[in-house]
Amino acid sequence: MRILGIDPGTVRMGYGVIEGEGDDARAVDFGVLTAPASTEPPARLAILFDALTKVVARHRPDVVAVEEPFVAANVRSAMLVGEARALALLAAARAHIPVRQYSPAEVKQSVTGHGASPKEQVQTMVRLILRLDADPKPDAADALAVALCHARMVRLEQALERGR
Amino acid sequence: MRILGIDPGTVRMGYGVIEGEGDDARAVDFGVLTAPASTEPPARLAILFDALTKVVARHRPDVVAVEEPFVAANVRSAMLVGEARALALLAAARAHIPVRQYSPAEVKQSVTGHGASPKEQVQTMVRLILRLDADPKPDAADALAVALCHARMVRLEQALERGR
Repeated sequence: MRILGIDPGTVRMGYGVIEGEGDDARAVDFGVLTAPASTEPPARLAILFDALTKVVARHRPDVVAVEEPFVAANVRSAMLVGEARALALLAAARAHIPVRQYSPAEVKQSVTGHGASPKEQVQTMVRLILRLDADPKPDAADALAVALCHARMVRLEQALERGR
Repeated sequence: MRILGIDPGTVRMGYGVIEGEGDDARAVDFGVLTAPASTEPPARLAILFDALTKVVARHRPDVVAVEEPFVAANVRSAMLVGEARALALLAAARAHIPVRQYSPAEVKQSVTGHGASPKEQVQTMVRLILRLDADPKPDAADALAVALCHARMVRLEQALERGR
């Protein structure tokens, strides 16, 4: 199973592609999509959306796992979070790929064992689980973490099925 | 000048195309884009985005005028507003059409003379200004209103230019 994890943002969009379920998962590709800071918001959304669409087309994931927006501090930031999320959902839906969403606490719990871990701990655990040479950048690490969270969820669901 | 006005929503997306500036503007097309209520959010965004992209391709507007989200009541609704807005900005940016944004108060002020008019008054004024046979539906009326707001703004800017 190939999973694309996305950490949505209107300035930096983290993505991470993993292959496999549970603890044997390996990283296929990961990184951070950005648009020049000087770009006007509409053009920036288009740049990020087109880049994300290319990632989807290149890797043809079976599922897209998106980190649900944390409860934003205020209405203004919630709107930006909604904009970023729309890009991720849209890129998946237009390629007819199912989407699963996980809260930041679920993602952290799954990867570090604690729902309130600091960012550095997520980076370190993602590096160890995927046997990477170095810590991925924070947004890429979050994207890989949500992909790993989904991989683990699939394994748990399969175990439940077998146990019935 | 052809102006596409958009009243963004993740359930109902109002659009209205007008031709001309100021008070001689006429309605070319208007309506409300929807997706079945039972559709999952990612697929719904894709349906609305594809429908909006078709409207843009059909009418090739010179500019897209988007009603800025009102200050949402809470963080949850602000996120949905952000999602809807992303669709509108994205559809415009991907067609390389410039975007202008107006607040609900600016739109109402421009069309009814009052920044806090009720929806019905916007519908009535849009019908009278554009000499329509009947009141457009609320979301379509809001979209036509934001297009008219931009048309009036262009006329004012031109008058200012001439006056220099």
